[in-house]
Amino acid sequence: MLTRIDHVGIACRDLDRSIARYEAALGLVVVGREVHADQGVREAMLRVADAPAGTSYVQLLEPLGPDTPVGRFLDRRGEGIHHVGYGVTDIEAALESIGASGVRLIDARPRHGSMGASIAFLHPADLGGVLTELVQSPGPG
Amino acid sequence: MLTRIDHVGIACRDLDRSIARYEAALGLVVVGREVHADQGVREAMLRVADAPAGTSYVQLLEPLGPDTPVGRFLDRRGEGIHHVGYGVTDIEAALESIGASGVRLIDARPRHGSMGASIAFLHPADLGGVLTELVQSPGPG
Repeated sequence: MLTRIDHVGIACRDLDRSIARYEAALGLVVVGREVHADQGVREAMLRVADAPAGTSYVQLLEPLGPDTPVGRFLDRRGEGIHHVGYGVTDIEAALESIGASGVRLIDARPRHGSMGASIAFLHPADLGGVLTELVQSPGPG
Repeated sequence: MLTRIDHVGIACRDLDRSIARYEAALGLVVVGREVHADQGVREAMLRVADAPAGTSYVQLLEPLGPDTPVGRFLDRRGEGIHHVGYGVTDIEAALESIGASGVRLIDARPRHGSMGASIAFLHPADLGGVLTELVQSPGPG
């Protein structure tokens, strides 16, 4: 069902500073920057590597304000890994299968995510405390 | 420098229960179980997907006792993502380059990790609060 680890989402207080750090330390390159007002974040996608199943990214997330999901995460836990995203080829089929296994779906239907993808979040309480995202990338694969 | 997201390491209180949950929910399959007394953990590697650069895994980690790195993590933060591991082809060259960028190295030299790999950890304080591991898998690639 899963095709790859699509990305790790990392909550940070200062997006430009975090980008500079990841570029300098790990040689990653920013391939997209977006603002998602509905999710309360500005973000950058840094490419880790390409593979036939799709690209893998580090996603750096800065909250648009303190009263947002990532803002509250930073208040509670500080900077660090916020979630993990896995690639799927058919997100609606994956949601049906995962929901049937007893995992609560935060998004019962896919919505628009980064880089033109369809995404949906799964409840961390049913996956060992890990906020988990499914990602169906646009185009072939 | 990085070839892929090799794995996400997830701290859990009960390894067998967590394996069952990830197998049932996400269709993952255990491909290795190991005990690392020096790191104070028992663990399972669950394959997410294969790619030319190597396999990607979910790594489930149960502490051997409360006074271990993962045991203290669970006390402090509860179950959830503990670290992320990136694939490299030459871990000694990667450590030299990353150290030169100013990131503190927890392991200045590689040591033995899961699935026969050479691994080294980087300090989370220099990578946005993310405990980061480099992984050079055995064999070609």
